Amino acid sequence: MDAQRTLWTHGHLATLAGDAPWGGIADGALITEGEQILWVGATETAPAELLAGVAQTHDLHGAVVTPGLIDCHTHLVYGGLRSNEFELRLQGASYEEIARAGGGIRSSVTATREASEQALFDSAAARLRQLLSEGVTTVEIKSGYGLNLTAEAASLAVARRLGAELDVAVQTTFLGAHALPAEFAGRQDDYVSAVCDWLPQLQAQGLVDAVDAFCEGIGFSPAQTRRVFEAAQALGLPVKLHAEQLSDQGGTQLACEFGALSCDHLEHLSEAGVQAMAASGTVATLLPGAFYFLRETKLPPIAALRAAGVPMAISTDHNPGTSPTLSLLLMLNMACTLFRLTPEEALRGATQHAARALGLKDRGVLQAGLRADFCVWDIAHPNELAYFFGRNPLALCVRGGQLRGA
Amino acid sequence: MDAQRTLWTHGHLATLAGDAPWGGIADGALITEGEQILWVGATETAPAELLAGVAQTHDLHGAVVTPGLIDCHTHLVYGGLRSNEFELRLQGASYEEIARAGGGIRSSVTATREASEQALFDSAAARLRQLLSEGVTTVEIKSGYGLNLTAEAASLAVARRLGAELDVAVQTTFLGAHALPAEFAGRQDDYVSAVCDWLPQLQAQGLVDAVDAFCEGIGFSPAQTRRVFEAAQALGLPVKLHAEQLSDQGGTQLACEFGALSCDHLEHLSEAGVQAMAASGTVATLLPGAFYFLRETKLPPIAALRAAGVPMAISTDHNPGTSPTLSLLLMLNMACTLFRLTPEEALRGATQHAARALGLKDRGVLQAGLRADFCVWDIAHPNELAYFFGRNPLALCVRGGQLRGA
Ligand SMILES: [Zn+2]
Ligand SMILES: [Zn+2]
Repeated sequence: MDAQRTLWTHGHLATLAGDAPWGGIADGALITEGEQILWVGATETAPAELLAGVAQTHDLHGAVVTPGLIDCHTHLVYGGLRSNEFELRLQGASYEEIARAGGGIRSSVTATREASEQALFDSAAARLRQLLSEGVTTVEIKSGYGLNLTAEAASLAVARRLGAELDVAVQTTFLGAHALPAEFAGRQDDYVSAVCDWLPQLQAQGLVDAVDAFCEGIGFSPAQTRRVFEAAQALGLPVKLHAEQLSDQGGTQLACEFGALSCDHLEHLSEAGVQAMAASGTVATLLPGAFYFLRETKLPPIAALRAAGVPMAISTDHNPGTSPTLSLLLMLNMACTLFRLTPEEALRGATQHAARALGLKDRGVLQAGLRADFCVWDIAHPNELAYFFGRNPLALCVRGGQLRGA
Repeated sequence: MDAQRTLWTHGHLATLAGDAPWGGIADGALITEGEQILWVGATETAPAELLAGVAQTHDLHGAVVTPGLIDCHTHLVYGGLRSNEFELRLQGASYEEIARAGGGIRSSVTATREASEQALFDSAAARLRQLLSEGVTTVEIKSGYGLNLTAEAASLAVARRLGAELDVAVQTTFLGAHALPAEFAGRQDDYVSAVCDWLPQLQAQGLVDAVDAFCEGIGFSPAQTRRVFEAAQALGLPVKLHAEQLSDQGGTQLACEFGALSCDHLEHLSEAGVQAMAASGTVATLLPGAFYFLRETKLPPIAALRAAGVPMAISTDHNPGTSPTLSLLLMLNMACTLFRLTPEEALRGATQHAARALGLKDRGVLQAGLRADFCVWDIAHPNELAYFFGRNPLALCVRGGQLRGA
């Protein structure tokens, strides 16, 4: 950590704080010290008493500055890939043929269980580096491809180690209730019991920041999800949910009963679900990459969420089966192009509201007292972050007060 | 240029030559000298007489090697951006409000005319560097935002200079018949006459490799397009066409009469158009970025093109209004996800068939005697290039025989 007081001048700041569009400051400055932002404002108004202690100054020459990006929903740790399945499907193979060729989520579970912890780390680290190269400063990582105690623990331990070795803030989520492993075929309730049993042990090892489940016709029922959430609640762990992606199961209302941090996907969310989220202050995490990759046509109820004041986050949902993307910037464009968010809503979704989806109050906007996590972009206006697709204009990134380059 | 003979060993080659899937060689090698590939084959079969002269060797350790990527349809040179228009539209502004705020193609024309040649170069160079960072080794660049002789000449001169200064192969295309400039309002035929008049002068300056037009209800009619093509033909210049993007104008059949290198977009292409392309050997250049960005729903007739044996190229169509993408790799994924091409078809579309769309016989596959343009990727199988979206796994790039790094 760079404990020296540092001044960043002449940036076009999109602070996302306050009520102005983009929280914009046309010629803005930040003063940072250690991991913290000490001050943000117009360059010319920087207080003399803070400037006195400045050890180094960076002139940003009008470049755009935003909060560091936060990817609040990823499945980065898994063995294998599913590119062969992708190819087979496009060659016209049937689902049966793909299953025979070892496709589907079970192939990821098998590969994850077979992989060494080092191999899991190495493949996930390469993926995480791609996210960091675009300015991600905090990332959530779920388990859910191990589906037994050993492999779930290994996945979460890899997530923790990624944070430590790549020096990035990682929030871990236990997603044991992601899919039914083959050895529990026909015994779904028994598997849920096992998941609930593993949780205290995983928490005791310091591996769990939150608990998630996949509530869906092809996943776990609301009643089963409730059992997982009760186990989490008993341990004081916050919950979130993969909800209403393929059908309206009412999982959102259930999650809101438990004060869920976020409900994610939400293409089939009902008006009752929207109202439940508004009442519980739950974030709607939208995942346009999965929507795109699965060629979905039913949009999440954006207008209703907006009208109800539900904060909308945006994330990659990186996973090998339904969203093999590693670009959070691309998700900003997809959120605008496919979901019709505004560029400002999209950026807030990958910063301010993503922080809230992770229960993190110390980041997501540029404000005195918060973490010094920010990006400097080689663009003239922050709307360019959402306008381009497949462009990385990151000039430099400051993560935890440290300059990282691009 | 590195004239030394160089050996590249132990690559997983996707040569795209021959009839094997991907033209694959599991443990392959290349021998290059100067700008040329001398030999390609299985590592263990490299001929002793060629190995004798090898001055340096690179072990690729199983990395995937493909031909260099070729972006065969771009509008890289223009002034301004259209990110404000993008934002206004998502904020709910009407087309009238956007027009009043200076949106639309005319805003790009105004900004292009007002920009200095240096400013046009600088902005286009930044965009081109992004394409090169993903392994593009040849790029086509169109004019079409100048729409008067001075600004069209400046745009094409900038394209030539981009090739020289960034040391990349650039093919220039004159697209005077892109849109009607304001000063010709109501006099579309007069504008076409002007375009035809400019062409000999531009060619004499060495600025034109091919001639293109936008044949569309909102563009130029088939009769007007014919006049432009006749002017090109009289000068011995090859033609290509923006055809059947928004409606079926029959422009494709017209272009095929002139032996067009490619017809591009093609969402509304008829079966007669498909047959005309097959007969004339014209390439179908598919532009999934514009399809995505415009939220089109009518797909190009992929199955008919495939059945008729029409080669399909893939390109970014980078432009500020309808396809602000700078990732040809992302277009591979979009070609698969949105257009249902196979990963191999998508890669051939951005290499082999893109070369053909530019009339270049010396590149696009890995084969002895062709240009030493190739990419080394940090992946295990070439299908990963299309499977991921928003990931850049380029490890190194050799362009014109020169190692460029990633
Ligand atoms: Zn997910
Ligand atoms: Zn175009």
